[in-house]
Amino acid sequence: MATESRTMHSPPHQHGHASTQASTQPAHSGPAHADHSVARHRAAVAELLTGLRSADRTETLPLHAVLGRGLAYDVSAPISLPPFANSQMDGFAVNSADIPDGGADLPVADPLPAGATPAALESGTAAPIMTGAMIPAGADAVVPVERAVPDRFPVPGAEATVWLPATAAGTFVRSVGSDVPAGELALAGGTFLGPAQLGLLAALGISEVRVHKPLTVLLVTTGDEVVEPGQPLPAAKIYDANGTLLESAMRQAGLNVLRTGISTDRPEELRALLHAHAPAVDLMVTTGGVSKGAYEVVRQAMDGQQAEFRHVAMQPGGPQGIGTFDAVPFLGFPGNPVSCLVSFEMFLRPVLAELFGSPAPRTPLRARLAHGLTSPGHKHQVRRGSLQADGTVRLEGGESSHLMHALAGSNALVHVPEGVSALAEGDEVEVWML
Amino acid sequence: MATESRTMHSPPHQHGHASTQASTQPAHSGPAHADHSVARHRAAVAELLTGLRSADRTETLPLHAVLGRGLAYDVSAPISLPPFANSQMDGFAVNSADIPDGGADLPVADPLPAGATPAALESGTAAPIMTGAMIPAGADAVVPVERAVPDRFPVPGAEATVWLPATAAGTFVRSVGSDVPAGELALAGGTFLGPAQLGLLAALGISEVRVHKPLTVLLVTTGDEVVEPGQPLPAAKIYDANGTLLESAMRQAGLNVLRTGISTDRPEELRALLHAHAPAVDLMVTTGGVSKGAYEVVRQAMDGQQAEFRHVAMQPGGPQGIGTFDAVPFLGFPGNPVSCLVSFEMFLRPVLAELFGSPAPRTPLRARLAHGLTSPGHKHQVRRGSLQADGTVRLEGGESSHLMHALAGSNALVHVPEGVSALAEGDEVEVWML
Repeated sequence: MATESRTMHSPPHQHGHASTQASTQPAHSGPAHADHSVARHRAAVAELLTGLRSADRTETLPLHAVLGRGLAYDVSAPISLPPFANSQMDGFAVNSADIPDGGADLPVADPLPAGATPAALESGTAAPIMTGAMIPAGADAVVPVERAVPDRFPVPGAEATVWLPATAAGTFVRSVGSDVPAGELALAGGTFLGPAQLGLLAALGISEVRVHKPLTVLLVTTGDEVVEPGQPLPAAKIYDANGTLLESAMRQAGLNVLRTGISTDRPEELRALLHAHAPAVDLMVTTGGVSKGAYEVVRQAMDGQQAEFRHVAMQPGGPQGIGTFDAVPFLGFPGNPVSCLVSFEMFLRPVLAELFGSPAPRTPLRARLAHGLTSPGHKHQVRRGSLQADGTVRLEGGESSHLMHALAGSNALVHVPEGVSALAEGDEVEVWML
Repeated sequence: MATESRTMHSPPHQHGHASTQASTQPAHSGPAHADHSVARHRAAVAELLTGLRSADRTETLPLHAVLGRGLAYDVSAPISLPPFANSQMDGFAVNSADIPDGGADLPVADPLPAGATPAALESGTAAPIMTGAMIPAGADAVVPVERAVPDRFPVPGAEATVWLPATAAGTFVRSVGSDVPAGELALAGGTFLGPAQLGLLAALGISEVRVHKPLTVLLVTTGDEVVEPGQPLPAAKIYDANGTLLESAMRQAGLNVLRTGISTDRPEELRALLHAHAPAVDLMVTTGGVSKGAYEVVRQAMDGQQAEFRHVAMQPGGPQGIGTFDAVPFLGFPGNPVSCLVSFEMFLRPVLAELFGSPAPRTPLRARLAHGLTSPGHKHQVRRGSLQADGTVRLEGGESSHLMHALAGSNALVHVPEGVSALAEGDEVEVWML
């Protein structure tokens, strides 16, 4: 835990009544109360999870099984790429010294297909060479077939000559190691393995690699007001969006997700559930019950554990729980769906990318606002938006954290940093594509 | 097939010799030879695959099984979101008419937790209300607890009064249907189902949806020069990067991929392989053997099938095969790894997104070049690059299509449209994040 940790001891829960907790906690949480910055809380999450990055949590798997994983070690190139000098074009392999400035007619030698080891080029001849074929000894350049006269390959076996223009040594030759030389770093440990990275490993002849094992996370949504989708909806209740939203985001990020169903607002029920699953998981994430209301089940269930509940200077997603439960890392996200996703994107996802190389990190982009906005100046505001083809970003929905439909119509998070209280149309903002 | 189709009849293959094909085809393919534009070829790919979008190729699955799929129908909201007016804050539910401009002291009523159906608010009182709790009849606004005096909730049961400032009707009330009203379109058919979209469906109480079934694609890499990763590498041979690269990109895009291993340059071998697998797949993709060289195994294997080989005005990835083999849609990508990925990203991936709602479409972004570039003016050039935090894009590697290491170090494709032959540092380009 971070040094700023302060264990939260909540009073016993009184079911059906507001607990006394609210009256013993400061209800106001403005900047005067030393909110944690986004960066400080993210660093605390990284510190919490760093112990999960260890050698015994890696495994060696074939390439087809590691798509979306993070590489666990630096991979050096075992061979050069290309492995040998080869032709970049369908054309004629020549010795550049054989063709004077005005061009020359040269007898055509046997063709050189890709994959065959060629005989040395006889001095003063031109050999038809296919893209990717090895440059023969004695040749140092390739003239593309469309620059030859005639601009096609002669029928093999028939005697022929071809006129070729002068060409500089090295032209259309892919030299050995010009992509990556043997022995050099090909991919650094912590690299996300997407199609291009796996393609590079295959090109190097590597058929299996050591990667980080995926973490298993216990995901528990809480709240007496929450009902499973597909069930009837009683008055004053809402369907659980958080479970599906976060499970999907976590799976997309490469985590194994263990769902427990919805926990009620009884802390002893939640506590029993966490005790039961703790031995089998690497991380616990709860939603709801971390705020300053009168019924905060997660705060209450964490009584006696090493956890604290803080306010991060972020909107939405300010109230955050962090610590351990039975020594298992624990994060308590707030209860609104948009707050949940923003918490995941701002804290857990970037830390996973940094520590385990998976998921791929979000690339910070720059875009101009399609319209102005306001923001609480003392908080980092995260808005939802749609990036338009003209490079502007349109905000979807307002600041409010319950707008799932607006979130589902967005493709980006829009960042308004702490210290900024208003932005105008056309102002540039940082944007993360979802 | 598109009306511009022209069936290609290649001559019989003569193993070990250059075929006569090259001399009967125009070897030059400049703009004078009516190259297909990128848009025209993409439209032809869409036409080829559109028959695969049909009702019997959809299935109804629970939410946890449809992450990354495309929605097969328009989904209307079965309930409003929010389903009832509720509080946006922890605070006091009031009737705004009870508080004059200067504020008022009000007796505190019983607290209203989330999930409970509240009794009507007694006129002239204020009820502690938690975020998400139903607004009681008789109340029309919420005053946040931090604006109250005292700024905390009284102990329940004890008699108390609270001073509250005047507040407008509707303040901090999330009204019924303010996110989406019942009956309105929630998600359109063809929507990609990511975390936010699945979260919305869950919030609406929907537990299963009808989605497009994933296509099964047969992926065949070809070439006598190509060796499986993990095997020894003979002289003049290279490892197969295309298979791993494309399989990964296709799986990331939601396709089922059937790999056959590498086919040699013998067309009869490739033909037998395609015949054997045709009944079990929706689409065939080959790599290599579609160009104008002397040994073009895919062109030769397609003899007698409804397929043509064309040159698309694109660099890399110009030579493209398209048609059907045993009535199964067929695409022939060129043999260089970067050309393969660019072909997939430019033609197959956007068509899958458009027809089947999966994968998620690439969002076109705008970025400024970190340095100048040149491009063949008569082709759409696709460069690889890294988007920087300052909003500029740095090119990785040159134009050459064999640079796997450079591709693996890129996070974006950079588009230089047809008609543009040079761009300067600072010029704006369209960029697709990979």
